[in-house]
Amino acid sequence: MRAEIIGIGTEILLGQISNTNAQWMSDRLAEIGMDVLHQQVVGDNVERIAEAFRLALSRSDVVIATGGLGPTQDDVTRDGLARALGVGFERHPEIEELLRGKFARLGRDMPESNLLQADVPAGGRYITPERGTAPGLVCEVDGKRLYAVPGVPAEMREMMEGTILPELRALAGEGAIVSRVVRCTGIGESRVSTLLDDLFHMSTNPTVAYLASSGEVKVRLTAKAATSDEAARRIAPVLEEVVARLGDFVFTTNDELLEEALVRLLAESGKTLACGESLTGGEVAERITAVPGASESFLGSAVTYSPESKRAVLGVSTETLDSEGPASETCAREMAAGARKLFGADVGLGLTGVAGPEPHGGKEPGSVWIAIDADDVHHARFFLSPGDRDQVRRWASNAALDLARRYLEGRPLPDADRII
Amino acid sequence: MRAEIIGIGTEILLGQISNTNAQWMSDRLAEIGMDVLHQQVVGDNVERIAEAFRLALSRSDVVIATGGLGPTQDDVTRDGLARALGVGFERHPEIEELLRGKFARLGRDMPESNLLQADVPAGGRYITPERGTAPGLVCEVDGKRLYAVPGVPAEMREMMEGTILPELRALAGEGAIVSRVVRCTGIGESRVSTLLDDLFHMSTNPTVAYLASSGEVKVRLTAKAATSDEAARRIAPVLEEVVARLGDFVFTTNDELLEEALVRLLAESGKTLACGESLTGGEVAERITAVPGASESFLGSAVTYSPESKRAVLGVSTETLDSEGPASETCAREMAAGARKLFGADVGLGLTGVAGPEPHGGKEPGSVWIAIDADDVHHARFFLSPGDRDQVRRWASNAALDLARRYLEGRPLPDADRII
Repeated sequence: MRAEIIGIGTEILLGQISNTNAQWMSDRLAEIGMDVLHQQVVGDNVERIAEAFRLALSRSDVVIATGGLGPTQDDVTRDGLARALGVGFERHPEIEELLRGKFARLGRDMPESNLLQADVPAGGRYITPERGTAPGLVCEVDGKRLYAVPGVPAEMREMMEGTILPELRALAGEGAIVSRVVRCTGIGESRVSTLLDDLFHMSTNPTVAYLASSGEVKVRLTAKAATSDEAARRIAPVLEEVVARLGDFVFTTNDELLEEALVRLLAESGKTLACGESLTGGEVAERITAVPGASESFLGSAVTYSPESKRAVLGVSTETLDSEGPASETCAREMAAGARKLFGADVGLGLTGVAGPEPHGGKEPGSVWIAIDADDVHHARFFLSPGDRDQVRRWASNAALDLARRYLEGRPLPDADRII
Repeated sequence: MRAEIIGIGTEILLGQISNTNAQWMSDRLAEIGMDVLHQQVVGDNVERIAEAFRLALSRSDVVIATGGLGPTQDDVTRDGLARALGVGFERHPEIEELLRGKFARLGRDMPESNLLQADVPAGGRYITPERGTAPGLVCEVDGKRLYAVPGVPAEMREMMEGTILPELRALAGEGAIVSRVVRCTGIGESRVSTLLDDLFHMSTNPTVAYLASSGEVKVRLTAKAATSDEAARRIAPVLEEVVARLGDFVFTTNDELLEEALVRLLAESGKTLACGESLTGGEVAERITAVPGASESFLGSAVTYSPESKRAVLGVSTETLDSEGPASETCAREMAAGARKLFGADVGLGLTGVAGPEPHGGKEPGSVWIAIDADDVHHARFFLSPGDRDQVRRWASNAALDLARRYLEGRPLPDADRII
């Protein structure tokens, strides 16, 4: 079955917001085996919206539009859909009641303009909103299915997950589709593709696909079968093979973020972690603390951006700063040990280097030293990171999180001098 | 003139990457006064690419495609464009020479597949690549202009800025377009729109537009005139009026990020800054240090995620932790003062609170306390932030950066108990 996504909103065409809904929806549709062959974006204009629906109906089996279902004059998706289908509206009193109830609970009167949201194109049905006030719309024509959902991401996702994806799975037949995602870091996409080349080309159920971004590579296995259990059984041996081939580079087989995997491993091991950061400027701590529950095992990070603060806060020696400089392996080691001591943690991470864009202290941009320190490990490594300032910081924080991940899993730590 | 953007790449349709190019291009086209009425996305398929070009030519004056110009078998934008125009290819030896030169400088042989990049649809011209190896393509048909540029964002931007935007400005006539962006924080979009309502509705040259995101509001003024000087003169009085009305909430009139404005103000004042962070987990430091040159005035941040580390690292008193708790105004004040002392900075910022999603220590999610400490200021404020964990952290870091910005500009600090 072919699906098509229509983003509706002048703010997308003006470049004021990114069409992130389209990415999320495409990803979820791919997961259930729907082929998305086209995406469109049009503004808040009834005729252009109607044209977009007509075009989509001419080439796709399922059309999902997002945006333009609010109560203002700008919100004309409802009208564009009705015009494309050549139908009028039916007012649904139960939607009106629902909306009045939502406003009453907020202690506010419902503006009359919201009544429009109780109108559904004739012959269609609606999806009840949980969070927002805009109902979703569902119409069928010539065996094709059209959906319209709000543009607010949380409201869109609620209707996709609660109604549309289950309906489409059912439409697609009795089969089940199961996906598993293996994520790895410290290894390039070209090496992953070499290692998995035969699986990528030969395995059709499950299919094997990969994608590189920000210093990591995702491998997604997707299997179809009569039941989810059977699909899962089809995936199991291929998943095992992929994990065996990628080995120590794999940080999760459950689509976790690297920082989520690390927080999980810390909780499992009962160990606490602290950091001393320079070139990453707090990014390591920021990523770890973005994970709910991180406070159980993450004690903190000393972001020491000046040489003097490395000495005063983390206890880096004057000798190291004078001889090797703040961007050096010894400094990274002393920062890791210093952070561990300062916060009283079981494990310390230290990161220093040159984020760029300019060289610093004779070291070229992209030079990164990271170190890990614990009772049973005192390890450091250097690498030259590709990319601009943001990318260098991202690669550095990835490498540090992964160093801690490998340590907690009892895996070999990358060589001190390995170049990514 | 109407413009249309075509994103080409199966990875966009699979939701593996976001179509960020479309947003960037739309934004820049809006800036020079081009109306983007449609965006399309298609995969790496010759016929569907050709159809997308034909559709775009039927309704737009300028078509810009991005992606699919690489040297692999998947890269078929060149073929789709030629098919849409019904023409063959002309090989340009000077492109071949350029490509061989690029490979030679990298010390590598050029794969024969790269030769395809020397093919230009007959009658068209090309844009010389600076960074990458893929030339851009330019074709004209029936007075309409088609461009194809690489999908790698840096390569796309290079061709847009170096060739396409200047050409389109020239196409649009002799006039000049100048934009200025005023950014403010600590004020909601609805209040900005109320304050600027008459300008938004009445001013046509410059036009006034606004957009809210992540706790800030951007106001963009765009003027057209025969020369840039004249356009700038048209903007000046309206810019002055906007700034006067928004007052202390404005942090830049030059489209800087809040952290860029802060780093600039620190440099101008010669003052140094340090932070003590809890709920933001390093985000304040991460944002400041993302600005090149931040190391001149930003000394560091102590991310103290446990109560004990607030005491041991930042010197928060046991009494405060026991009586008011780590999420409290007094704790924020002691963190600001402690960070200032620890790093020997002129100005200290302290942030604590509950990022959520769960309540903590009897305080509800979204509770944020921030404080600033310097010789001449000891100020704290509380607010309840809307949103999920990420949003609470973003609002908190915005509010702290803005507190420092206001202090350095000598503006009034928000009331301690003001609710955003």
